Amino acid sequence: MSKQLEVLDAACCEGLTSAPLDAGSAAELATVFKALGDPVRLRLLSMIASRQGGEVCVCEMTPAFELSQPTISHHLKLLRQAGLIDCERRGTWVYYWVLPAALDRLAGFLRTPQATA
Amino acid sequence: MSKQLEVLDAACCEGLTSAPLDAGSAAELATVFKALGDPVRLRLLSMIASRQGGEVCVCEMTPAFELSQPTISHHLKLLRQAGLIDCERRGTWVYYWVLPAALDRLAGFLRTPQATA
Repeated sequence: MSKQLEVLDAACCEGLTSAPLDAGSAAELATVFKALGDPVRLRLLSMIASRQGGEVCVCEMTPAFELSQPTISHHLKLLRQAGLIDCERRGTWVYYWVLPAALDRLAGFLRTPQATA
Repeated sequence: MSKQLEVLDAACCEGLTSAPLDAGSAAELATVFKALGDPVRLRLLSMIASRQGGEVCVCEMTPAFELSQPTISHHLKLLRQAGLIDCERRGTWVYYWVLPAALDRLAGFLRTPQATA
């Protein structure tokens, strides 16, 4: 669990609607939402999150964008630092997978008490 | 419903884990997450979202920050443009409230199929 998302253990059960966030928690959470606040990173995350089997090689992601591999790797690094994905190098390539608990914690933080399902 | 969040009507039911986002939807959604990707805006949103009764006067929010009122109003404008809050001027002051359906749509977009409750 990333440092940023640890604050959700304290905040998420009650969520955004329960009480004003303190400055420290807001700063940690803002880095997670900032990681999501970029179209390329959102597309990368959805490519990884929607993959049957769970893992995506960086070599499969780069061709989907008109961006260099270092740029793609930088975006992936920000998602990883936010605690949303993790990765492992195997030989030449790095493989990425999503951390579902992190996405669900974030969803729980946003969800209002009125929400059904 | 903001233009940015309208894409969630198409994307949210299935969510982030269902299929890779197209570039257009990713661009729209990124602006919403970017609005959340700032500590001051997260604190403002949580102040509004956690208010019993639902409305907060901008005059109550400014004293909580060491920022000028125009700066606070700018942050509130970005949250409003993202479709997360709305507001109404009454006399001297502007009153803000959260749009719960927007938060719930965003939560639904992030939530994984494995998530319980």
